[in-house]
Amino acid sequence: MFGIVGVPIIEVAMAAQAAGIRYVGMRNEQAACYAASAIGYITGRPGACLVVSGPGLIHALGGMANANMNCWPVVVIGGSSDRNQETAGAFQEFPQVEACRLYSKFSARPSSLEAIPSVIEKAVRTSIYGRPGACYVDIAGDMVNAKVERNSQRSPNQPVFFHPIGAAYGRAETVLREFIETSGLPFLPTPMGKGVLPDDHANCVAAARSRALLLADVILLFGARLNWMLHFGLPPRFNPNVKIIQVDLCAEEMGNNVRPAVALLGDISAVATQLLMCVRRDGWKYPSNTEWWSTLKSKIAANAKISKALALQSTVPLNYYTVFHHISQLLPHDCIIVSEGANTMDIGRTMLNNYLPRHRLDAGTFGTMGVGLGFAIAAAAVEASQNTGRRVVCVEGDSAFGFSGMEVETMCRYSLPVVVIVVNNNGIYSGVDSETWKAMKQMGEAPPVSLLPEARYDEVMKAFGGRGLLVRTVEELRSALQLSLSDWERPSLINVLIDPSSDRKHPNM
Amino acid sequence: MFGIVGVPIIEVAMAAQAAGIRYVGMRNEQAACYAASAIGYITGRPGACLVVSGPGLIHALGGMANANMNCWPVVVIGGSSDRNQETAGAFQEFPQVEACRLYSKFSARPSSLEAIPSVIEKAVRTSIYGRPGACYVDIAGDMVNAKVERNSQRSPNQPVFFHPIGAAYGRAETVLREFIETSGLPFLPTPMGKGVLPDDHANCVAAARSRALLLADVILLFGARLNWMLHFGLPPRFNPNVKIIQVDLCAEEMGNNVRPAVALLGDISAVATQLLMCVRRDGWKYPSNTEWWSTLKSKIAANAKISKALALQSTVPLNYYTVFHHISQLLPHDCIIVSEGANTMDIGRTMLNNYLPRHRLDAGTFGTMGVGLGFAIAAAAVEASQNTGRRVVCVEGDSAFGFSGMEVETMCRYSLPVVVIVVNNNGIYSGVDSETWKAMKQMGEAPPVSLLPEARYDEVMKAFGGRGLLVRTVEELRSALQLSLSDWERPSLINVLIDPSSDRKHPNM
Amino acid sequence: MFGIVGVPIIEVAMAAQAAGIRYVGMRNEQAACYAASAIGYITGRPGACLVVSGPGLIHALGGMANANMNCWPVVVIGGSSDRNQETAGAFQEFPQVEACRLYSKFSARPSSLEAIPSVIEKAVRTSIYGRPGACYVDIAGDMVNAKVERNSQRSPNQPVFFHPIGAAYGRAETVLREFIETSGLPFLPTPMGKGVLPDDHANCVAAARSRALLLADVILLFGARLNWMLHFGLPPRFNPNVKIIQVDLCAEEMGNNVRPAVALLGDISAVATQLLMCVRRDGWKYPSNTEWWSTLKSKIAANAKISKALALQSTVPLNYYTVFHHISQLLPHDCIIVSEGANTMDIGRTMLNNYLPRHRLDAGTFGTMGVGLGFAIAAAAVEASQNTGRRVVCVEGDSAFGFSGMEVETMCRYSLPVVVIVVNNNGIYSGVDSETWKAMKQMGEAPPVSLLPEARYDEVMKAFGGRGLLVRTVEELRSALQLSLSDWERPSLINVLIDPSSDRKHPNM
Amino acid sequence: MFGIVGVPIIEVAMAAQAAGIRYVGMRNEQAACYAASAIGYITGRPGACLVVSGPGLIHALGGMANANMNCWPVVVIGGSSDRNQETAGAFQEFPQVEACRLYSKFSARPSSLEAIPSVIEKAVRTSIYGRPGACYVDIAGDMVNAKVERNSQRSPNQPVFFHPIGAAYGRAETVLREFIETSGLPFLPTPMGKGVLPDDHANCVAAARSRALLLADVILLFGARLNWMLHFGLPPRFNPNVKIIQVDLCAEEMGNNVRPAVALLGDISAVATQLLMCVRRDGWKYPSNTEWWSTLKSKIAANAKISKALALQSTVPLNYYTVFHHISQLLPHDCIIVSEGANTMDIGRTMLNNYLPRHRLDAGTFGTMGVGLGFAIAAAAVEASQNTGRRVVCVEGDSAFGFSGMEVETMCRYSLPVVVIVVNNNGIYSGVDSETWKAMKQMGEAPPVSLLPEARYDEVMKAFGGRGLLVRTVEELRSALQLSLSDWERPSLINVLIDPSSDRKHPNM
Repeated sequence: MFGIVGVPIIEVAMAAQAAGIRYVGMRNEQAACYAASAIGYITGRPGACLVVSGPGLIHALGGMANANMNCWPVVVIGGSSDRNQETAGAFQEFPQVEACRLYSKFSARPSSLEAIPSVIEKAVRTSIYGRPGACYVDIAGDMVNAKVERNSQRSPNQPVFFHPIGAAYGRAETVLREFIETSGLPFLPTPMGKGVLPDDHANCVAAARSRALLLADVILLFGARLNWMLHFGLPPRFNPNVKIIQVDLCAEEMGNNVRPAVALLGDISAVATQLLMCVRRDGWKYPSNTEWWSTLKSKIAANAKISKALALQSTVPLNYYTVFHHISQLLPHDCIIVSEGANTMDIGRTMLNNYLPRHRLDAGTFGTMGVGLGFAIAAAAVEASQNTGRRVVCVEGDSAFGFSGMEVETMCRYSLPVVVIVVNNNGIYSGVDSETWKAMKQMGEAPPVSLLPEARYDEVMKAFGGRGLLVRTVEELRSALQLSLSDWERPSLINVLIDPSSDRKHPNM
Repeated sequence: MFGIVGVPIIEVAMAAQAAGIRYVGMRNEQAACYAASAIGYITGRPGACLVVSGPGLIHALGGMANANMNCWPVVVIGGSSDRNQETAGAFQEFPQVEACRLYSKFSARPSSLEAIPSVIEKAVRTSIYGRPGACYVDIAGDMVNAKVERNSQRSPNQPVFFHPIGAAYGRAETVLREFIETSGLPFLPTPMGKGVLPDDHANCVAAARSRALLLADVILLFGARLNWMLHFGLPPRFNPNVKIIQVDLCAEEMGNNVRPAVALLGDISAVATQLLMCVRRDGWKYPSNTEWWSTLKSKIAANAKISKALALQSTVPLNYYTVFHHISQLLPHDCIIVSEGANTMDIGRTMLNNYLPRHRLDAGTFGTMGVGLGFAIAAAAVEASQNTGRRVVCVEGDSAFGFSGMEVETMCRYSLPVVVIVVNNNGIYSGVDSETWKAMKQMGEAPPVSLLPEARYDEVMKAFGGRGLLVRTVEELRSALQLSLSDWERPSLINVLIDPSSDRKHPNM
Repeated sequence: MFGIVGVPIIEVAMAAQAAGIRYVGMRNEQAACYAASAIGYITGRPGACLVVSGPGLIHALGGMANANMNCWPVVVIGGSSDRNQETAGAFQEFPQVEACRLYSKFSARPSSLEAIPSVIEKAVRTSIYGRPGACYVDIAGDMVNAKVERNSQRSPNQPVFFHPIGAAYGRAETVLREFIETSGLPFLPTPMGKGVLPDDHANCVAAARSRALLLADVILLFGARLNWMLHFGLPPRFNPNVKIIQVDLCAEEMGNNVRPAVALLGDISAVATQLLMCVRRDGWKYPSNTEWWSTLKSKIAANAKISKALALQSTVPLNYYTVFHHISQLLPHDCIIVSEGANTMDIGRTMLNNYLPRHRLDAGTFGTMGVGLGFAIAAAAVEASQNTGRRVVCVEGDSAFGFSGMEVETMCRYSLPVVVIVVNNNGIYSGVDSETWKAMKQMGEAPPVSLLPEARYDEVMKAFGGRGLLVRTVEELRSALQLSLSDWERPSLINVLIDPSSDRKHPNM
Repeated sequence: MFGIVGVPIIEVAMAAQAAGIRYVGMRNEQAACYAASAIGYITGRPGACLVVSGPGLIHALGGMANANMNCWPVVVIGGSSDRNQETAGAFQEFPQVEACRLYSKFSARPSSLEAIPSVIEKAVRTSIYGRPGACYVDIAGDMVNAKVERNSQRSPNQPVFFHPIGAAYGRAETVLREFIETSGLPFLPTPMGKGVLPDDHANCVAAARSRALLLADVILLFGARLNWMLHFGLPPRFNPNVKIIQVDLCAEEMGNNVRPAVALLGDISAVATQLLMCVRRDGWKYPSNTEWWSTLKSKIAANAKISKALALQSTVPLNYYTVFHHISQLLPHDCIIVSEGANTMDIGRTMLNNYLPRHRLDAGTFGTMGVGLGFAIAAAAVEASQNTGRRVVCVEGDSAFGFSGMEVETMCRYSLPVVVIVVNNNGIYSGVDSETWKAMKQMGEAPPVSLLPEARYDEVMKAFGGRGLLVRTVEELRSALQLSLSDWERPSLINVLIDPSSDRKHPNM
């Protein structure tokens, strides 16, 4: 449970702790709700987000929207006004159940103490059944300290874990790997599908993504949606005659934007298993010597050459590719990578490999800025409670960090050993260097994209007792990252000053 | 105009700058919208908040809700998806106009480039006419870089007049002061009404607020709402037979919760002028020697004695009263005080006097946490552009500061000389000291209200080039505040470590 | 109170009757809500509409929308599910308070029996204060038969009648008449403003409406909105340089679409009184011999000539003008005219004079079809209870009648002596004659606008014991109308078969 | 396509006709939308409902709500204001897409003419994929007569497959019958599940419904929801230890209110086929000689005895049971029965057998009054176009008939040979006889449940050229029904006057 306490839900947090639920107090409900939703993705069971009435709940709407778009389960619990003050202008009175409607699968207020268990059960169950998403439960302020006989409650059912969607979420990794290896097909992961099969798998064609999409004549789509992330499945990014075999849990998703040649409705895992059986039975295998493979492989090689050339530049200030190249070399294979930002997330996605499913969290389908630190805190809290020995690394653009930077205090307070890396180019998309900045300021207004040059985000971490490191060179970066990765007692923030004019993704890639 | 740029509204920000509108880039749309709304309160004309689609807009809903509750004008402008991608799963696609309905007086999307001026005119006009509030205008992404013949536009009207509400907002200060002084009546300001008449005015009975409310037999209500802030106007906080003369611009507010003996519908200023004329004509004056005055004065004296006793304690760690006592002594009379927090705001309101109208901004009617830094930035931006020589002082609880602490970077970036004072008691409501904290952590979970003890919020300010000062004693506090107030080049943050168990407001007051 | 009983609100209707409230049971909640809203217009106090849960309430939304657009007060009371079944799939469970949001000024559910009086008070007050409109109160099913101590209720306030809008609604007729006569200005009523001054007043220029709008250089607008009904106040229907003096109760209405030269915010009556004082003081009078008056008068004369020529045609089947001409001759001056339909309402508006304010109700600002019989029932119920001796005449197009024709049973059941006149042209806009109909049917599908030729709507009235009359000629029409107007015991329906190809409004008028 | 034409959608109706779509013009959008939704249930493909802007659309919301609750596909197409008049107070301007949100699965406006095909495709597909429901498409008025190059459209996909829910809707009848007969299990149909297996099947225990629910220890639930219609699956109507095997297409429905012992997610047909295979493989059969069967059979016999006794009474006025007994004897086995009302529907459901799936339509899950005539018109229109020779019989309570009685004109206009039977007890639930009515009227107000005694609904049908018959005795009823059933040229209405105090369902049944 993540949240911020206040009237009227302070006792709810304490009761949760007393019942053995871990409560993590955050600094803004916005980040708290992003954190809670990440729990759902990582564990398959919804985290809870506890917020106060009115503005507290409204701050959490971003998290609900993002969870719904990502199909992640989360349950938000909001305190609300005392019922006998409703319509009278109560403290933070707001139509909360109604306010959550657009952002949730289920939004309700228990009408009595007796009804709370069954409404909570419905919220939890609905959040994970079918296509997962956000649910909201409103608790009237006057109920918080009221009491009820345990026997008078409708007995709640404990939800059983059920029907997740998406290849990563659906835990279909084993069967998908077998299917890919048996069939010999090339594959392309979506951003958060990275790691279902390792990014360095021989059949992965992520490094030739545009070419692969454009030239494919048949695409087997496992749970991915043909929305903006896949260019709607339409020309000019796709072959107009491409045949799509669409596998999805959600019937309404079938045929969205592009009519599939074949639609297979069902759990990814179940469908992939059946496909695997067919492939095995028929002994079918896509030959490794086709022209298609050659084309992709030569494109992959060409792209690798370009990015390697960029990655080997070590002039200061550094560029994105060099930074990610060295980070990539040092990160453990089983680390959880959280990432957000514009260039930072885009280029980072191509440079930082994932090797395990559900080990990457980013701005997602809704492209939400401000999720990074919340996600990292959630991941670290899970790791802490499960003692898995996995690192959580949070790779942030400098603008992205600003959305929830105060949450480093939360990391310090709970001794969560997150390694935050801020790839700092002094702005949104790109900024300017200190001298240009000074000149521009004297002449008048700075451009809207500019942030303070060389801002010391590392000092923010130090302010709360974490490790803060400022790096400008490859050596400093490597040494800072090694140091941070070796420390399990407290969080670190590595502030990597890069060239503010560092190019966005290379145009030929 | 406050906001965060990104696709698709980056060019809107640049065009605004080109048109001479000052653009302030913030770190989270949440704080940006709080800032924009404060412009409306301070200047009487709406500020603009510019946000990207989807999550960017959703982050701004808190600011719209708060503005609406406070009856402050603000216009939010949101970019949205390209129209030809709607329903196809466009980037950050969301029903934005609909999402803003609950939070606004007017929410619309111009159907064409030609319609933009008239929709903006409606939004600006609606935001300030009648009871002011939030308005939303949605700009489809594909419109941003499209062009239109200037002549083909419907010619927009420039809004001409407006009808603000509330005594502070309505600029009724001159006539209200005359009315009070002519009539000799005691008065009690609501939190943001502080300063309409000076807090140290002889007729102000704020220091005996509870007693004054309870014993009044007639109350003349100038624009204040009988909601939770005034205990709904009902017993046990009010005399059940109290007669209320209600003056309000908004007909629907009349009789809300309590039926007024007399309802005067109209502009505060106009009504107060008419009342003043009556009082003058009749030569009526409330005698200064009534029992009612004696009761109030003796209660005021008693309360003053209690708070003075508390304020004179200078043992370290300090208590709230001592801190506010010394701050109060040093603040210039014309400074703008922004404040939020629980104890910090409550006690601060009684200890920090206001002498001028519209010089106080706080969590307001909606009790919103997270508004402080945005409000302060807005106030400082106004001061900077008007060169008034007034200081902006932002008095924050430590938890409150966390909601938008990263905005100190914004202050530094724009060289806004805000003086932020964090009254730091290590938690929400109250925290624990470092030793207790360590012990509790070893034993298990910390209480939900606790934050990191002695967190160095001052270092956060220093990270971005501002002045950061940590103070524990009266001397340090005075010297830090004097130093900060003397610097007009950059913001300061004074981190005042107080006794984590420092009492909440004294029970007898 | 109008409505349809059922679970769970049957006892509410009975309790209302026991408390002396007249309950009129209707046949569809749609018509019931239109009826209830008309009470608000006619009497200035809101009628109530009582509906069952789910679909019953949804059927009433049209009435709420229409009331809100017309600025008429109405209070809808909806039963809802038992609270302990909420979220479980209760009978007709629906988020009713939320569903009414878009259609109301106030929508709430009392949280307890004790809260009912104060929520009802808020609904009633809000419906009439400021700009009137619809309010919704939700009554949980389990509250209906529950009991409460009378003393435990929050004491409700009785709303005082307050601030209506519009010249008709605002009861400004006396002062407006004096103003017009003193100033000598020509005037033009909006559809439901007809009768504030008599339509046959020497200064009325309704018969030259288009010309008057187009040539005016100054317009004094009393509460009318510059929406579609007044062509938005824009060219080509208005002089582009027209100066508008806008008088309105609602600040947000000021400057809507056109910037007024002068905006006068306030009650119509009060403002008109002040204007009258100025005109009198200055002895100003608009001369009767201006070119403007000549232009208008010659246009009026020309139009009168055209319509007289049409009205004098008595060939069978009749045309609209002849029908309305004879109806007009026979209707008493103080009758209440309800009207809806396309041609029937449009042409009828120009041909049927009103002589008294609030004596005309039609499809209104929202152009709602289906309102006629409900409005007529409401008007007749008011007349019955006040024994005023005024007739209620309901002039319906045949398509319009079909929306709520079953409500003639309601008229019969309550012995409401409404005279319904169906001007029957066999279709929407226009239909075809019987022979064409038969031919078309044999050939395939009939056009979407066609209804059954010569449908016997009169027989529908007879089915329930009312008088039904079929007329085709002038003589039959006059005799049927005279007979109907002489009968105060029961309703009549005169089915006037006119030429299905009868022209729409004459193009030169 | 059902609807009512007007501005701006009249040309849409004509274009639909030109494209070969049958258009049925109704008398109220409320009934039109109920009709359109029934098409979806009967044919498995959505009907369309075409409505004008503002009130026209609002009248259709009831139909959308009912369709959504019943999980029936329907596509509502609404005209809206011209885009260039939006926000200016256009004719019937309303936020229509937003207004439909609560009542639909998908609600959108195409942003351009080019986008219309793909938005319609999404609406149609979404209405039938997954759990079916209502979809809304908004067409801006100015688009109606605009033109576009055919080639510039995004090519729409024709939806290909679909996943209906419920045993009746899912066309699982063949396999379910085999399953029941192979397994020997007793079964109980839900109201609209009647006919999936014939009501007179040896294993049907509908006549002992309460007993069957209460005593079952295992329930196999095929697509039925455990909502109010099944008493939430909870005590006291169910054994608290009952084990439920829940088969549903919709994951979120699983475990709603009661945790199933087994949850089988999938198409009813597919799951039933698998269960049948298991039963066959194992040779399992529920013995016919169990105590359970004896109990149910003796209860069935007892109930049959009671209802037979009631049905054999032929004293005038008749009671419900007698009326239904004779109707039942005369109806052809393949007729489609539409029914609504309180007692009429409840008792009729037990007395009127269904023998084929999807041959019964009634007030449904949402308990909507006013659906009957629309449903009957839809069913008759389908029969007319398919020439199946099946009768449509519409059994209405008298109050229920009043909601949409004017639609008999529609039946007459289109020569749809529906047999409407109004079971007329002079009121809602129950009324009073004529003498009592007169006495009550003289004394003051009639009870809210009373309608006009012996109202001649048959005359309403005659008014439009249909056959109207008034019956009071068994002989009259039988003869009228035989006559009506023999006429395929026009509709009939049999007005059956029954005892107004005729008992509701027998308490022991």
